[in-house]
Amino acid sequence: MASERFDFACALAEKAGELALEYFKRLDTLTISEKGHQDLVSEADRDVETLIRAELAKAFPDDGIVGEEHENVDGTTGYTWVIDPIDGTANFVAGIPQWCVILACTFADETIIGVIRDPIAGETFRAKRGAGAFVNNKPIRASSTDTLARGSVGIGFNGRSKATDAINAIGGLVSKGGVFFRNASGGLMLAYAASGRLIGYLESHMHAWDCLAGMLIMREAGGKVAEFDGHSVLAKGTRVIVGAPGVFSDLKDIAEASFAPQS
Amino acid sequence: MASERFDFACALAEKAGELALEYFKRLDTLTISEKGHQDLVSEADRDVETLIRAELAKAFPDDGIVGEEHENVDGTTGYTWVIDPIDGTANFVAGIPQWCVILACTFADETIIGVIRDPIAGETFRAKRGAGAFVNNKPIRASSTDTLARGSVGIGFNGRSKATDAINAIGGLVSKGGVFFRNASGGLMLAYAASGRLIGYLESHMHAWDCLAGMLIMREAGGKVAEFDGHSVLAKGTRVIVGAPGVFSDLKDIAEASFAPQS
Repeated sequence: MASERFDFACALAEKAGELALEYFKRLDTLTISEKGHQDLVSEADRDVETLIRAELAKAFPDDGIVGEEHENVDGTTGYTWVIDPIDGTANFVAGIPQWCVILACTFADETIIGVIRDPIAGETFRAKRGAGAFVNNKPIRASSTDTLARGSVGIGFNGRSKATDAINAIGGLVSKGGVFFRNASGGLMLAYAASGRLIGYLESHMHAWDCLAGMLIMREAGGKVAEFDGHSVLAKGTRVIVGAPGVFSDLKDIAEASFAPQS
Repeated sequence: MASERFDFACALAEKAGELALEYFKRLDTLTISEKGHQDLVSEADRDVETLIRAELAKAFPDDGIVGEEHENVDGTTGYTWVIDPIDGTANFVAGIPQWCVILACTFADETIIGVIRDPIAGETFRAKRGAGAFVNNKPIRASSTDTLARGSVGIGFNGRSKATDAINAIGGLVSKGGVFFRNASGGLMLAYAASGRLIGYLESHMHAWDCLAGMLIMREAGGKVAEFDGHSVLAKGTRVIVGAPGVFSDLKDIAEASFAPQS
C-alpha cells in the first residue's frame, strides 16, 4: 500500500541523510585533495545507495528499484523505487552544504511518493499522491506570484544537455524581468519551487531519480508540472518545467524557446 | 588593536547569526504571505544591525560604522566597521536556508578583518590580515585547480548592474568549459571561493558590506583578488573578481569581456 511505503520512505530518507552527513563531515577533516575527496564521495554515494537498497529489500522485497549507481532490480508488485542517494554530488565533493537524498516510488507509470531530505537544514520535503505536500510537518504551497518579476527561478545545468540550453533560459528569464538561481542540486531546487521559495524550475534534461520526487511534491503543492511520459522517464529521463500556476505558461514559453529539441 | 577586534568580530557574528536565525525560524511558522514575510524580514534586518551596532558602540565606541540599513557613524580611531546583518535577503525572505551575517573592519583604506557567519551550516569563515583564513578552526585554501573545467564559479546578479553583465559572464565561462553557480548570497559564494569549494566569483558591482570581508578571506586563503580602490569602495562599492591562482587570469578576461564599463 502507498501509505505504508510513504511512512517508510520518509524514515528511510532521514536515515540515509544521516549516513551521508557523516561522510560529508569526514570530508571536512581531510586535507583538501581532490583525489581523496572524489574517492570518499564515490564511497559515500555507493554506501548510502547500498543502505537504501538493503532497507527496501527487507521491507518490500518484491518491489523494483531504479538508481544511478547500481543495477536496476525488476519487481513483481508493480511498485518501483527510484532513488538518488546524494543529489548535488558536485556540491558534496566540494564541501558546499547544499545537497539532498531523494526517494520516489512509482506505480503504473505514476509517481505516488516523493521524498527529498536535506540533512543540513533538517528539512524533509514530502508528498503522497493526492494527499498534499509538506516540509517536515508543515503543509507547503507553490508561490502565488503572477509575475516573473517577483521571485527567482531555478535553472538546471548539466553535462548532458547543450550548454546553450541553460544560458538561453537564463537570458529569456532575465529579459522578462526574472531572476535566476542555481545552487547545483536539482532536487533541492524542485523542493524550493514546491514550497514557494522559488517560483519555478527549468532543466532541459533530468534523470528520473533526480526529478520524479520533486515533480510530485510540486504538483501536490498546487504547482504546475509540464507533461512527461511516465513510462519512458525511468529509462531515459525527461525535460523538466515546473512553475507556480501564475507564471507556468511564461516559464514554458521560455523553456520552449531556449532548449534544443530532445533527442 | 586588530587582534582584539578580530576575536570580538567572530563572537559578534555568531551572536548576530543566532538572532537572525530566530527570525528565520519565525518566518517558517507564518502562513505564506509575502507582505507579512517582507515586514518580518525588514524587522530582522534592522534588529540584527541594531544589535551589531550596539555591541560595537559598547566595545569600540570611537570606531566608525558603515552599513546598509542605518546612517554611517564617523569614528576617530581610524577603524571602520562595514556590516551586513543579513546577506542573501531574497533567500531569507523566501525561506531558502542560504544567507549569512558579514562583518568587516578597515584601517587606512585596507580591510584588516573579515568574518562571514552561516548559522544554518554552523560555519564561520574568518580572516585577519596577514594571519591566514579559517572556517571555524580549520585553515582554508583557495582551490589548486588550473582549469575552469574543474570546479564551479559563483556569478553575482543584482538589480544595480546591467542584466547582461551576469549573462555574458555565464556565457563566457561556459564557452571555456566552466560551470556557474548562484545561490543568491554573494557573501557565502565568496566564502566558498576562499575555501576552495568554488574556484572563483564574479560580480559586476557589490557594496562594500557585501564584499570586503569575503575578498580579505579569499586573499588570506591564497586566492587572487582584482585590485580595487580601498577608499572609494566604502561609499561606492566595486567590481569583484576573485579566483583560484590557476584560473584567476581566465576569470579576469571573462569579466572584462562581459561587464559593461563601470559608471
